[in-house]
Amino acid sequence: MGSGRLATNPMKKISLLALAASAALSSPLLAQAKPEETAALRDAALTDTVAWDITEGLTTEIGPRLAGSDAEARARDWAVARLKALGFSNVRIEPFEVPYWERGEASAAIVAPYPQPLVLTALGNSAATPTKGLTAEVIGFDSLDSLKAADPAAVKGKIVFLTHRMAVTQDGSHYGTVGKVRREGPSVASKLGAAAILIRSIGTDHHRAPHTGSQSWSDGAQPIPALALANPDADQLERVLKRGKPVTVALKATARMAGKRLSGNVIAEVPGRDPDAGIVLVGGHLDSWDQGTGAIDDAAGVAITTAAAKRIMDAGQPLRTIRVVWFGSEEIGLFGGAAYREKHKGEKHHLLAESDFGADRIWRFQTSVAEAALPAMKPLAAALAPLGIQLAPRNGDASGSDISEIQKLGIPVIELGQDGTRYFDLHHTPDDTLDKVDPVQLRQNVAAWTALLSVTANDPTDYGPVPPGAH
Amino acid sequence: MGSGRLATNPMKKISLLALAASAALSSPLLAQAKPEETAALRDAALTDTVAWDITEGLTTEIGPRLAGSDAEARARDWAVARLKALGFSNVRIEPFEVPYWERGEASAAIVAPYPQPLVLTALGNSAATPTKGLTAEVIGFDSLDSLKAADPAAVKGKIVFLTHRMAVTQDGSHYGTVGKVRREGPSVASKLGAAAILIRSIGTDHHRAPHTGSQSWSDGAQPIPALALANPDADQLERVLKRGKPVTVALKATARMAGKRLSGNVIAEVPGRDPDAGIVLVGGHLDSWDQGTGAIDDAAGVAITTAAAKRIMDAGQPLRTIRVVWFGSEEIGLFGGAAYREKHKGEKHHLLAESDFGADRIWRFQTSVAEAALPAMKPLAAALAPLGIQLAPRNGDASGSDISEIQKLGIPVIELGQDGTRYFDLHHTPDDTLDKVDPVQLRQNVAAWTALLSVTANDPTDYGPVPPGAH
Repeated sequence: MGSGRLATNPMKKISLLALAASAALSSPLLAQAKPEETAALRDAALTDTVAWDITEGLTTEIGPRLAGSDAEARARDWAVARLKALGFSNVRIEPFEVPYWERGEASAAIVAPYPQPLVLTALGNSAATPTKGLTAEVIGFDSLDSLKAADPAAVKGKIVFLTHRMAVTQDGSHYGTVGKVRREGPSVASKLGAAAILIRSIGTDHHRAPHTGSQSWSDGAQPIPALALANPDADQLERVLKRGKPVTVALKATARMAGKRLSGNVIAEVPGRDPDAGIVLVGGHLDSWDQGTGAIDDAAGVAITTAAAKRIMDAGQPLRTIRVVWFGSEEIGLFGGAAYREKHKGEKHHLLAESDFGADRIWRFQTSVAEAALPAMKPLAAALAPLGIQLAPRNGDASGSDISEIQKLGIPVIELGQDGTRYFDLHHTPDDTLDKVDPVQLRQNVAAWTALLSVTANDPTDYGPVPPGAH
Repeated sequence: MGSGRLATNPMKKISLLALAASAALSSPLLAQAKPEETAALRDAALTDTVAWDITEGLTTEIGPRLAGSDAEARARDWAVARLKALGFSNVRIEPFEVPYWERGEASAAIVAPYPQPLVLTALGNSAATPTKGLTAEVIGFDSLDSLKAADPAAVKGKIVFLTHRMAVTQDGSHYGTVGKVRREGPSVASKLGAAAILIRSIGTDHHRAPHTGSQSWSDGAQPIPALALANPDADQLERVLKRGKPVTVALKATARMAGKRLSGNVIAEVPGRDPDAGIVLVGGHLDSWDQGTGAIDDAAGVAITTAAAKRIMDAGQPLRTIRVVWFGSEEIGLFGGAAYREKHKGEKHHLLAESDFGADRIWRFQTSVAEAALPAMKPLAAALAPLGIQLAPRNGDASGSDISEIQKLGIPVIELGQDGTRYFDLHHTPDDTLDKVDPVQLRQNVAAWTALLSVTANDPTDYGPVPPGAH
């Protein structure tokens, strides 16, 4: 099915127009949430405890939840129990298979000219070194482009060091640029004949906490050891290289692919009054990288969206069904999002919204909706403004990692944007732990999501379809 | 020799009185530095590059410098070469032996009820676990006193978890209180029959960067594995214990004592015009813990004091000899300070001053001088005030780790106090790296030390002797 699915279903379209007309007649079934009701729900959410309880519980009682691991399986069971206890309907696990990669151990040291250890960790899908390790000269590049332009004869058999700087941005936009270095650098180095690649961590901190992350081998690239140096260690290796003497590094890594494992999405629902009104999907991802306990990435995301959905559920049945999805195996390549699309592409989705950017204060919201639906964003903007949240001027920028696959079918998306100023200090590091979640800001998130659901799950206006390529 | 050494040497005392008298007659040999000369030297030091070069060089070209290690030996050679190149006189190594302890590897995981890894590192002199590790139930204590009061039957065979909180203080004074937990806790736990002890890191940060540090086994305490959890991991273990179920932890540590090794102090001098006027000793320590590169602890300290001494040297011969000491093996138990005292206790020291509290802005100075010498602090206070540095009201609080042994002989001490607000975020962790040194604040330190030396190395007034127990 193509990305214009909703537009090609004339029956649905007519039905929606009819619903919109009846809404104008103030049918009790279809009435929009009154602004004062939304405001009351929103403000009550500023004392929320559910989001903290979920974030604290998941990170404490499960901890790290690597995609495909036993811990992720325990997390699914934990999620089912918690979602049932909260009163949600249709709580279930939808399983799927994933390739399983194990980090193993990694160590490295400068051997010459200045012997000393370096702190680093494997990137997703990294190969191991030989059991005894490998020792080779380092060749440094300050950008992916300079690596791409390198003479293979100069790179062959060497350890490539790819350094670059990530800037702090409130909206995290620099991740798009430098994330490419992590995702593409290893394949480029491999094709040039490198023995291994060390990249500077994709992160904005100054701690000995290397940032892992996914990368995949492009066609024809043999897997090699691919690791991220902590930022202070990348600084150090830069300084050592600048001395101009040949630099030799010894490296050991035991990372490996370990077959297929089971992963899964956990789903819970608040059934709507009108089964034909479509689904408002909210959620985040249940899996985490294995270095930290995945507090900001993304226990907080599933916690915030679940807490908000529970508030709407407890306030009375919404017009549209709210579906909360705790996606599995996001980190290793959006497997949960792909599995969700495959299974649910035939269902009507009114709106998608994901929380996967930490738990600091939400400062703006973005939309990817039909141009005709923009006026319908005004009630939401009014409901969010008291929380210090403004509508971004450009339509078409809203997305989310897990929802990106099904979004391609033309489904509208609203994105509540957290302040990401410190997000990339912690992202994918051992430092992603509960203490990084500020309870006050977490509650502001719950309030914003409660307002979002109060408005959108009760708004009879259709926000789509979104034309292909509009986001 | 007792602590009233200088007071019991009438010849010296008379000689000093005579000098003071001649100073009053403006003898060129003994003239105090003119305030405007000190001010000029101080302000020129605000553009210093020597301290940065030493800090950068030592942390880059040597890196971690564990007491007794090959790296510490390389650091001594590096120091000799650098001090000679800077033009100092009498540059030499004074060797001594130390017990050598190796950190090895440490890993731990909660086995039940919530399996997940914990980040930790061994404390100095920790024993190893059995090769296969040890697994035991955890018993938690929130203070050293509650551990001391524990029933041995409740502790026997268990892993003691000793948690406590360190407060951020500008002057670092909380280290005195909570440092005791690290130094004494392991022996107390051992005597109660514990299988191992995990302490919450003595630190004020929230990173997965455990704080190591020295501890020694008291009489009758069998060495056991003694390790520090990173603060987020101590938080986590607290949360897990609060759930009320029995908590089991599996622990591996390969730390070991490995015989005797050579360490040493590196000494350099600026000979004074009057060999009888006594020595102004300044310095810090050359060794570091092995987790970081020892930038704030204490490459910066040796760098700041050396840079200041060089400025005085280059400005013309001072009245008194300035002796710069880069002490060895401070971290594992002040061995360098003890060796220095043993070797140099017969020499006349006018003043001791050590920099071992990072490189952030100096905000006050403290004194441990004879009461009669307090008026002589006024020119120094005047020279430091433009840098935002004030004299602490109470005399007797100045000290320093390496100089603490020889200070006991009654020698005056002045302590320039850095702002320690973030010092214990980094102290003894892998995060003690060059990027934590702010070049601007480092230069303020050099300026303050330059003023200190300009005044005190040219001041004919004697600042001592300091009565026993006065500091």
